[in-house]
Amino acid sequence: LQTDIRNFARNKQLDQVVVINLASTEPQASSEAERLTGDDLTQALERSEANTLPTSSWVAYAAIDAGFPYVNFTASAGADLSVLAQLAQHRRVPIAGSDGKTGETLVRTILAPMFYQRNLRVLSWVGNNLLGNRDGKVLSEPRNRESKLRAKEEALTKLLGYSPQTLTSIDHVDSFDDWKTAWDHVHFQGFLGVQMAMQFTWQGCDSALAAPLVIDLARLLLAAQRNGRVGAVEELSVFFKRPTGNAPHDLAGQFERLKSFANSLSRRS
Amino acid sequence: LQTDIRNFARNKQLDQVVVINLASTEPQASSEAERLTGDDLTQALERSEANTLPTSSWVAYAAIDAGFPYVNFTASAGADLSVLAQLAQHRRVPIAGSDGKTGETLVRTILAPMFYQRNLRVLSWVGNNLLGNRDGKVLSEPRNRESKLRAKEEALTKLLGYSPQTLTSIDHVDSFDDWKTAWDHVHFQGFLGVQMAMQFTWQGCDSALAAPLVIDLARLLLAAQRNGRVGAVEELSVFFKRPTGNAPHDLAGQFERLKSFANSLSRRS
Amino acid sequence: LQTDIRNFARNKQLDQVVVINLASTEPQASSEAERLTGDDLTQALERSEANTLPTSSWVAYAAIDAGFPYVNFTASAGADLSVLAQLAQHRRVPIAGSDGKTGETLVRTILAPMFYQRNLRVLSWVGNNLLGNRDGKVLSEPRNRESKLRAKEEALTKLLGYSPQTLTSIDHVDSFDDWKTAWDHVHFQGFLGVQMAMQFTWQGCDSALAAPLVIDLARLLLAAQRNGRVGAVEELSVFFKRPTGNAPHDLAGQFERLKSFANSLSRRS
Amino acid sequence: LQTDIRNFARNKQLDQVVVINLASTEPQASSEAERLTGDDLTQALERSEANTLPTSSWVAYAAIDAGFPYVNFTASAGADLSVLAQLAQHRRVPIAGSDGKTGETLVRTILAPMFYQRNLRVLSWVGNNLLGNRDGKVLSEPRNRESKLRAKEEALTKLLGYSPQTLTSIDHVDSFDDWKTAWDHVHFQGFLGVQMAMQFTWQGCDSALAAPLVIDLARLLLAAQRNGRVGAVEELSVFFKRPTGNAPHDLAGQFERLKSFANSLSRRS
Repeated sequence: LQTDIRNFARNKQLDQVVVINLASTEPQASSEAERLTGDDLTQALERSEANTLPTSSWVAYAAIDAGFPYVNFTASAGADLSVLAQLAQHRRVPIAGSDGKTGETLVRTILAPMFYQRNLRVLSWVGNNLLGNRDGKVLSEPRNRESKLRAKEEALTKLLGYSPQTLTSIDHVDSFDDWKTAWDHVHFQGFLGVQMAMQFTWQGCDSALAAPLVIDLARLLLAAQRNGRVGAVEELSVFFKRPTGNAPHDLAGQFERLKSFANSLSRRS
Repeated sequence: LQTDIRNFARNKQLDQVVVINLASTEPQASSEAERLTGDDLTQALERSEANTLPTSSWVAYAAIDAGFPYVNFTASAGADLSVLAQLAQHRRVPIAGSDGKTGETLVRTILAPMFYQRNLRVLSWVGNNLLGNRDGKVLSEPRNRESKLRAKEEALTKLLGYSPQTLTSIDHVDSFDDWKTAWDHVHFQGFLGVQMAMQFTWQGCDSALAAPLVIDLARLLLAAQRNGRVGAVEELSVFFKRPTGNAPHDLAGQFERLKSFANSLSRRS
Repeated sequence: LQTDIRNFARNKQLDQVVVINLASTEPQASSEAERLTGDDLTQALERSEANTLPTSSWVAYAAIDAGFPYVNFTASAGADLSVLAQLAQHRRVPIAGSDGKTGETLVRTILAPMFYQRNLRVLSWVGNNLLGNRDGKVLSEPRNRESKLRAKEEALTKLLGYSPQTLTSIDHVDSFDDWKTAWDHVHFQGFLGVQMAMQFTWQGCDSALAAPLVIDLARLLLAAQRNGRVGAVEELSVFFKRPTGNAPHDLAGQFERLKSFANSLSRRS
Repeated sequence: LQTDIRNFARNKQLDQVVVINLASTEPQASSEAERLTGDDLTQALERSEANTLPTSSWVAYAAIDAGFPYVNFTASAGADLSVLAQLAQHRRVPIAGSDGKTGETLVRTILAPMFYQRNLRVLSWVGNNLLGNRDGKVLSEPRNRESKLRAKEEALTKLLGYSPQTLTSIDHVDSFDDWKTAWDHVHFQGFLGVQMAMQFTWQGCDSALAAPLVIDLARLLLAAQRNGRVGAVEELSVFFKRPTGNAPHDLAGQFERLKSFANSLSRRS
């Protein structure tokens, strides 16, 4: 894999390379994967034990070990394992992830704070996601969507401060092609217990929503590298379903972090 | 009016009084009203020229002149005239307003920043507001809703940084009683010009949404008065369609201002 | 106009011609127009008094007088005047109209019978129509949309057997291009007075919805002519907002009429 | 069970009794149940083999065998087994069912014919049903909702003449109490392959929608019995998700059948 990346850079005459995971979502990594050490990985490589890590994490390992910044734009494991976070520190490589937010979760992380700020108690939050592309097909398999659904619901709990009933589904609709439609229904309770409702639909083109984020992430991670940043760059949490480290969960707060970060970069490089 | 307020305080044995405008929305104040001076008002009072100010502004004048904090929770003129802002400074009275945001504008001021932050260009933003109560009846008269509609659309321009096509209507539906339903359709353009759409409906009980804000405003304005604040308290902009002074237009930013303000109060009093 | 139509037929080597009005909607015809006689029209022609009839009705007059079947696919007057209906009888020409139903009214005429059949009393029916093309631009002028709105609301009254509160608007949204979006909110009351709601959105491409109806109408009117039908063909009401003669108002009943008609034609010609 | 029913009639001094199944939905009956004969049931009764039939079918057996008209208002088996249909013929008892349509399926059976009649090809039809009551809780178990989902999707195939992709879910939302919300998204293709969409939401109170149908069914089945009708009364299909015998699937056609039936009854009794 490292030779592939280096050949790619040489053939295209590139000075810098960022590796970004945009492959279909894998099933969730096993709990053993989270406990692996650097020695475990070295041994696995020597013994060609491919199953030790999910494919996305082997690619992340290859990229980070060779000194390339790495972005996990999917809900797969990628570099989201302690051993790879440590490797990134050690190899002095910046990384970011995971799982780009381009639709329902994007809207949820902007909307949920409103219910908190107005003291409107969310009783239930139901979300249906319909996708037409290969990503949707892969996610309609329960074990593939497990970690994505968890990230979606975790966001609500963090933003509201409690866990309302949530029901979130992801389904594949052949005829949608590269488009997706999400319908969310929020049932909430206000003053004196009065129950009210908000619904939204989001009709977006998956690639057109993802592509500019991918380009920005590539630029920002290269700039971060030039500025000496290593390990998880939590200032980039605005791009992802699951924020890194101590980054805030609300979109507004995440955007402020991004702006400060971008300003600090432009001053330095 | 001042005698009425003082009698009310005496009869109810109240130490403090806040005057809050919750009456039906008036037609927009004339442009002359904005240019009035304190001397003009004194003369108008002496000559009993009631038409010099809209009713809501006479009430605001009475309250402020007598030293009572004043909140304008409607789209009427109230204290939103230079001459009354000056009077509030002079009489050392805190004031706040105008027009509580409890539905469509609340959602718009939380949602619009998302489009800005993701560089999704809003092409058109259409909003239909259906209300069943007397407020809705009054607002279905074009000249009564004029200033409300302007505040709604101004918010979008400030938050997006440009003016997309907007169409906002307010209508009265008898059968809705104290409920309101807003439907908004946002047409936006993303990467490579791809056009996408978001829609939301907000089904809320008007009074249950407004009442807790009114109570909080009363408490906060009294606390502000005890802390020596005078004139427009722009830290309370989170409650209103039209922010005061240099307050931000986005809900998240406004909420941060409110929190700092509340913390500063609790430290002092 | 008649020379134009005949030249068109000659140049294109056509055996048959149907004239179909697809021009932008005109303001509603005056009440005098409805009382005109054939002699009035002859006089107006001699004196070149163009204002006697709306433009669309002059075209209808030219077509019918020259023996060409005529369809009014818009909300303009077209052949919807007694004097032109008589002329169609006299010249033995079949005509049909008016105003093709391709969106909100199509859905309303299929949905409204459900409320009637289930004894669910409609309290209010609100409809917002957003159109991006020239048709939408013309209809956003109040006097142009008047007759269209009347046809939309008349349909509900006929199908429900009473007149609920209705609010129907048509607006032009530049960015929609040839697309239209309708949002309808139906507030209804069931058993023991319980109030419930149904909403729908219809997102359609105006031309793609209209074109196949126009083609079918051309075919059907020519077949009707070959079968000796003259005057208004009420069996074609399924295509229009305003049914002709004694035709039913519900889509299901109208479709049955169309099927019988089509079967009768195929047996004869 | 028969003694219970007779005691109920005696205690309440009733001349007539109709047995109506309104219990929670059972899992689908086994395929063996469909092949049972009258002798099998007699044997099972003698041997107290309760598992031979689902509970709802034993109740149907008891009612029909004792000469009481029977309605199955749920998606359970009830009298929907050949052996019970034969028994109804033999005991000269009218029966009706199954599964009352009060929400999504009601709307689907009125809407789907529109797509057929306009030659708009449905590419996919997605439906999400959220229910708050015990019925919703029982149906959120996959094996309980199996036959209900099948009936919902079968209706579309019959009405459209082909099987578009369908995704229908039923979920329980605690906070909805006796209310239900359905969201349906219909993706369809028109002239020249243009793809368009329709969405609807139905917000209804489950009991208020069901109760009047139950009362009407009781009256109509008693009237049917007085008029000598025996076995499945297919003229009552308008009330149910799954029509009986040769009854049409579209709501409009079903309502016409009901009207003729009601008229025929009033002439006779």
